[in-house]
Amino acid sequence: MARAIKKSSRKAGLPPGTLVHIGDKRQAHTRIRLIDYEENDLRETEVRKIESLLSLKNSPTISWINIDGLQDLDLIRKLGNGFAIHPLTLEDIVNTGQRPKAEEFDHYVFVVLKMLRYDPGERHIRIEQVSLILGERYLVSFQETPGDVFDGVRARLRKGQGRIRRSGADYLLYALMDALVDQYFIILETFGEKIEVMEEELLANPTTEMLQGLHDMKREMIFFRKQVWPLREILSSLSKREMTLITEATGVFLRDVYDHSIQVVDTIESYRDLLSGMVDIYLSTVSNRMNEVIKVLTIIATIFIPLTFVAGIYGMNFVYMPELRWPWGYLWFWGIVVATATAMLVFFRRKKWL
Amino acid sequence: MARAIKKSSRKAGLPPGTLVHIGDKRQAHTRIRLIDYEENDLRETEVRKIESLLSLKNSPTISWINIDGLQDLDLIRKLGNGFAIHPLTLEDIVNTGQRPKAEEFDHYVFVVLKMLRYDPGERHIRIEQVSLILGERYLVSFQETPGDVFDGVRARLRKGQGRIRRSGADYLLYALMDALVDQYFIILETFGEKIEVMEEELLANPTTEMLQGLHDMKREMIFFRKQVWPLREILSSLSKREMTLITEATGVFLRDVYDHSIQVVDTIESYRDLLSGMVDIYLSTVSNRMNEVIKVLTIIATIFIPLTFVAGIYGMNFVYMPELRWPWGYLWFWGIVVATATAMLVFFRRKKWL
Amino acid sequence: MARAIKKSSRKAGLPPGTLVHIGDKRQAHTRIRLIDYEENDLRETEVRKIESLLSLKNSPTISWINIDGLQDLDLIRKLGNGFAIHPLTLEDIVNTGQRPKAEEFDHYVFVVLKMLRYDPGERHIRIEQVSLILGERYLVSFQETPGDVFDGVRARLRKGQGRIRRSGADYLLYALMDALVDQYFIILETFGEKIEVMEEELLANPTTEMLQGLHDMKREMIFFRKQVWPLREILSSLSKREMTLITEATGVFLRDVYDHSIQVVDTIESYRDLLSGMVDIYLSTVSNRMNEVIKVLTIIATIFIPLTFVAGIYGMNFVYMPELRWPWGYLWFWGIVVATATAMLVFFRRKKWL
Amino acid sequence: MARAIKKSSRKAGLPPGTLVHIGDKRQAHTRIRLIDYEENDLRETEVRKIESLLSLKNSPTISWINIDGLQDLDLIRKLGNGFAIHPLTLEDIVNTGQRPKAEEFDHYVFVVLKMLRYDPGERHIRIEQVSLILGERYLVSFQETPGDVFDGVRARLRKGQGRIRRSGADYLLYALMDALVDQYFIILETFGEKIEVMEEELLANPTTEMLQGLHDMKREMIFFRKQVWPLREILSSLSKREMTLITEATGVFLRDVYDHSIQVVDTIESYRDLLSGMVDIYLSTVSNRMNEVIKVLTIIATIFIPLTFVAGIYGMNFVYMPELRWPWGYLWFWGIVVATATAMLVFFRRKKWL
Amino acid sequence: MARAIKKSSRKAGLPPGTLVHIGDKRQAHTRIRLIDYEENDLRETEVRKIESLLSLKNSPTISWINIDGLQDLDLIRKLGNGFAIHPLTLEDIVNTGQRPKAEEFDHYVFVVLKMLRYDPGERHIRIEQVSLILGERYLVSFQETPGDVFDGVRARLRKGQGRIRRSGADYLLYALMDALVDQYFIILETFGEKIEVMEEELLANPTTEMLQGLHDMKREMIFFRKQVWPLREILSSLSKREMTLITEATGVFLRDVYDHSIQVVDTIESYRDLLSGMVDIYLSTVSNRMNEVIKVLTIIATIFIPLTFVAGIYGMNFVYMPELRWPWGYLWFWGIVVATATAMLVFFRRKKWL
Repeated sequence: MARAIKKSSRKAGLPPGTLVHIGDKRQAHTRIRLIDYEENDLRETEVRKIESLLSLKNSPTISWINIDGLQDLDLIRKLGNGFAIHPLTLEDIVNTGQRPKAEEFDHYVFVVLKMLRYDPGERHIRIEQVSLILGERYLVSFQETPGDVFDGVRARLRKGQGRIRRSGADYLLYALMDALVDQYFIILETFGEKIEVMEEELLANPTTEMLQGLHDMKREMIFFRKQVWPLREILSSLSKREMTLITEATGVFLRDVYDHSIQVVDTIESYRDLLSGMVDIYLSTVSNRMNEVIKVLTIIATIFIPLTFVAGIYGMNFVYMPELRWPWGYLWFWGIVVATATAMLVFFRRKKWL
Repeated sequence: MARAIKKSSRKAGLPPGTLVHIGDKRQAHTRIRLIDYEENDLRETEVRKIESLLSLKNSPTISWINIDGLQDLDLIRKLGNGFAIHPLTLEDIVNTGQRPKAEEFDHYVFVVLKMLRYDPGERHIRIEQVSLILGERYLVSFQETPGDVFDGVRARLRKGQGRIRRSGADYLLYALMDALVDQYFIILETFGEKIEVMEEELLANPTTEMLQGLHDMKREMIFFRKQVWPLREILSSLSKREMTLITEATGVFLRDVYDHSIQVVDTIESYRDLLSGMVDIYLSTVSNRMNEVIKVLTIIATIFIPLTFVAGIYGMNFVYMPELRWPWGYLWFWGIVVATATAMLVFFRRKKWL
Repeated sequence: MARAIKKSSRKAGLPPGTLVHIGDKRQAHTRIRLIDYEENDLRETEVRKIESLLSLKNSPTISWINIDGLQDLDLIRKLGNGFAIHPLTLEDIVNTGQRPKAEEFDHYVFVVLKMLRYDPGERHIRIEQVSLILGERYLVSFQETPGDVFDGVRARLRKGQGRIRRSGADYLLYALMDALVDQYFIILETFGEKIEVMEEELLANPTTEMLQGLHDMKREMIFFRKQVWPLREILSSLSKREMTLITEATGVFLRDVYDHSIQVVDTIESYRDLLSGMVDIYLSTVSNRMNEVIKVLTIIATIFIPLTFVAGIYGMNFVYMPELRWPWGYLWFWGIVVATATAMLVFFRRKKWL
Repeated sequence: MARAIKKSSRKAGLPPGTLVHIGDKRQAHTRIRLIDYEENDLRETEVRKIESLLSLKNSPTISWINIDGLQDLDLIRKLGNGFAIHPLTLEDIVNTGQRPKAEEFDHYVFVVLKMLRYDPGERHIRIEQVSLILGERYLVSFQETPGDVFDGVRARLRKGQGRIRRSGADYLLYALMDALVDQYFIILETFGEKIEVMEEELLANPTTEMLQGLHDMKREMIFFRKQVWPLREILSSLSKREMTLITEATGVFLRDVYDHSIQVVDTIESYRDLLSGMVDIYLSTVSNRMNEVIKVLTIIATIFIPLTFVAGIYGMNFVYMPELRWPWGYLWFWGIVVATATAMLVFFRRKKWL
Repeated sequence: MARAIKKSSRKAGLPPGTLVHIGDKRQAHTRIRLIDYEENDLRETEVRKIESLLSLKNSPTISWINIDGLQDLDLIRKLGNGFAIHPLTLEDIVNTGQRPKAEEFDHYVFVVLKMLRYDPGERHIRIEQVSLILGERYLVSFQETPGDVFDGVRARLRKGQGRIRRSGADYLLYALMDALVDQYFIILETFGEKIEVMEEELLANPTTEMLQGLHDMKREMIFFRKQVWPLREILSSLSKREMTLITEATGVFLRDVYDHSIQVVDTIESYRDLLSGMVDIYLSTVSNRMNEVIKVLTIIATIFIPLTFVAGIYGMNFVYMPELRWPWGYLWFWGIVVATATAMLVFFRRKKWL
């Protein structure tokens, strides 16, 4: 969690609107992919020169400009000027420690989202910021690294499947947000399975590592929730069409993503409740084991300590000890031992310790 | 809980509006039952061909089309086209991992609800999604499997009991929602009885299984609450007649179901509080038992360890030990033993350990 | 708590508006008492025939019709028809598991309240539903059993004390609600005293019964709170005169009851906080006692176990053990014993265990 | 806490508006002090006859009538009639268990506040109700006992310091509220210092009394918070000038007191968090001490129990035991003892128990 | 925390608007620095005479008057008169225990903020109040001591970097608030790193000091949160331009700081959750260590106590004890010892204690 904060503090003291790339993920060069489409046609190109993009702004087709890599500040500045984007927006794009948000500017809507993927090796959620700029007939998406969860959307665009080619740029925005939120469900599923496995292990054999594992899960849940929580507001405001660039038809679809985001938050809350309950179970199982240990100690000690005392008596060297000379003295001794032990066992049985 | 999530993640990457049946419950074929009624007449038929239904949309009678089984996507698609239902609605119907919700579309209201039944064998609540489409003079209900809680409503329809035959399709919607919420009360009753039984057992003889049982109950409560919570909003918006298809007369009845849903949530909250209190009682009882065990150990050890030491002294083989030759030495020894033991017992009594 | 739920589930599947008396309290016959008053006159009668009441609806006097016992469904149905009461209202009256609420209908206001009394024998709060129907110039009150907290109001009516005879039926409604809420304060006082007593006992001598007692109290608080919480909304909406049957003068008085209801809820919250604190104190005191027990065990064992070892040494039968033959060997032994014990005691004193 | 409730329950059953003095604080006679002022003049008198006050209502000067003692119900009733005060207001004045509130009536504003003082002897906050009636050009204040926190206000009035003499009665209301809230800060300071002292003691030497002390503090915090919480609403509504008797200039000052009241509530919340943390520290320190005790027991027992067994072996009387006759047998024995003890100590050192 | 409260209580009883400097930080003399700028020009001067500032109020340039040190009440009073500042504002400036707030007055906006710095030596956050008065074309800032976080802003002003010289005084206000909030991120980073370090230590070797450290961190978090929480409202109201002195362009920038303030609060909440989880881990690790200690005790005692009893038997001096004379008696004894010990070890292994 400290990572996200580290990034932001590095910027302290600089004037607002200063472009400083803040993020761990660096790559050799920035890659720009353009998908330019209308109902009956689709053109997909790798763009080298940023200048060639600027004319698209006014073309009748819908243009999806996807940018992988945020180090080339010069390129981003040029793009910003070309599309008349507010300096603060550009700053938020390259400073990847943003809280998810949706803001309306004069002629575009700016949306910051988080692409989350669960890394089973390092046991934590990997995060990448996706910034989206929705204009009248274009959508620019910024990613930190190549590789994303939008391949399904691209496939649908290419095949002209569904209504995506017949709709505007706002529907594309919806499709991308939907793909991101669908990914959240996959993470939830992973967590759900891990929780089920842990629940069974917990009852079978609780270990200290398991407590650490529960703590790690809880931390990931806190992190996850922090990323998803702001989505609710974003989607609520988008789906209520408070922003003019969103059409009514797309609003209905965004309401659907809004429902999904609520479902994600609900499930995270349920998982947190479950994890808290599991910590309680863990602590109680550990304490039960200790009780069992102490019971064994008590039973053994309580039986043998008095008997050892009796044996000690007849090990004494008093000159005058009549029992020692009794013919059946030794047998009597064994009688006492057996009787005492039996009485103790009956006592323990009654107390339900055995 | 993980089940519900698994379903949704399976859909990730598909275009919205794609019909994929997501759910565990599969059955051989889909069954369509039609109840077509007006104040003085009722006709009940099993429908084979979906086409025969489409004319009902404009008939003056009220039609209740009930569909059991969601695998026949073709059938659902045809129905959707016939009744002009939004693709997202159809998607939500077959994707049974929806959060309960009510949405108004151009000419219909779409309501997703959960039919819950407590399965005492598996000790968890079984869930089935019920989707309702309320039109001007028709109501279509979709269920995952045959068998439901609506037999009472059917009986009333057949007998013409109450106002149901004299009212519109919105009243039928109310009647079905009322039947679902009534079922929630039955589950609450089951839980209430289980909690009472557990409370008594808890005081009599707490076991680790009981803690597990409390944890299971808590989990079911979290699950239950998650299903019921959205109902409040749904019923509130329906009863306030924000939707044009709901008449004022039915609004009054829906307010009644709204009150019931609040009562259900309130009771779930109370149960959660009670269960938390019971976990505390459990932990405290277990810890009390341990205290008792330790007390017994301490009493026995504290009495006999010093006495064993005394016996040990007179078992020593020093050549010069005057006590050993005293005529009353052995008696003196017993005197010391009895005095020490008595002193200890008095001490324990004072400490209220005995 | 389970009781309240049981009642409601028994109704599942019946058409709404069906009158089924749901409640534990049954009595031989229903008793109807009428108090008919105006500023200068008051007439009190026991009514046998329900028909004689119906003319009162339009009389210029204020009529308070009080009905004890809800089994005679026929009578209630007749009354409902006579006063044109909505079927759902009648259902809510006889189904005594309602959540407190206030609803406005065309020509009357329907208020459901809970009459609470603390039963010291069974150690829980006894609950009885009081339903009030406020019309233009009449008020009908329904109770489950005879005996209520309204005797003060009756006395004031008879004596013409205060403004009650000079005011309308809405003031009578206020007077009855005020009497109910005053009763809540008496219950709070009882709880307050019990908490004070328990707090003192807790410090003196904590027992497992006490924990059970705290748990019982907490449960009663949860139950109490559940009954009082909805009162706030009811009184807020009544006092803000959202309902036309409430006059401005009475609104001021209802605001006063509203303040009281907030005070009751506040105090319940405070008590819950106190009880939680007391559970902590209990657990900590118990754990302190165990610490003391373990300390005694440790002190005794730590002193005598090494000494017993020393005694054991000189009890050995080695042929060559020089100490045994030393003339002062036995004295030396005692020297070691005293020195060891003293050292231990000094150590314990330093550790502040003694 | 139970005190406040006891008072209210004593009134149950009486008609509203009945004047019954409910409070513990009684004094021989009621004292009425009048301060009558305008910008250039101030007159201070002890009033004997209530009638002489009534003319003040319409005088051009500002009149502050302060009444100490609430037993003389007759006097209060006369005053109420003279100033046309609603019976419920009078009832609230003499019934000192009110929740703080501000109510607007036709021609006056009624404010109930709590004067709090920390009594270090009894270790709890002492509470006194102050009721204020703000009219056009007068302010009547009611206190339970003589002695208050308003001497600073009186001094400023007499000296004509600040704007108080130049402002209206609403400014006087503000000045009194400000003085009351300032007093809350003094209590907070006292608590803050106590918490600091306790924190240091807690780490040095935790005792059971300390836990009781923490519990007492928490209870006082609950009590304190309950008194201050309603202030926020009161001051918010007063400072937003929802009431016509408050001028804009005074609104600005009341906003300042509003800020203070929020600060008090914030600080109480912080203190409660701190106290909870301290209880955790206490419990953990106590549990650490027990661990230490158990460690000592374990070390001693684990070293000496095996050694005692060895000594026991050579104390046996078998006729044939070769070791007993070995010349170096006794030395060997000591060798075993030293080796075992050393091995144990190394083991403990490794486990970091020593 | 008590510090902040102490300051406020010292003022109790004084008339509002009385200037009393309340704060720990005192310095020899007050320093006034003026930066007077327009797009193309900047003048920086150290001001000696307060009178020279007053003309600036109406000059066409933007003036930033920064005052370090609040003891010279006379100076502040003069400034207050010169700039027509409300007495309450002046009081809030010198009384440094204010809650952060933003208030609009007739011709200026008054903002109170907290400059926070983490002092690693004393392990707590140091706090300094910064008061800002924003006028039409001037901004006056008050600090308790010299040294602040505004050097970046000054550098930008001098270099004419960014839009700061081209914008009004409201943009300067934004720049200062932004610098303060950036500083919060640096504190968060410090805490984040400390938490990471503590988490690792906690698992390696939990000590009581560590618990104290966690408690200190939690306390700092409570303190931090209390300072940042009110920022949200302040920035929300400023960015929504409820105040006329804030231009639309600056509103966009303030929305950015608003987002940051939410992020700070979110992160503080996450840290508090993490710290709570760490306390649980600590307690559980400590309790696990105790379990291990008790297990060792139990294993040793359970093996040797019965064996010591057996040895005790054959140390008895009964005249008739046949075993003592058996030729293989001593070997038999060893056989019993080995068998018993092995059985015990197998038992422990099965219980998974070894």
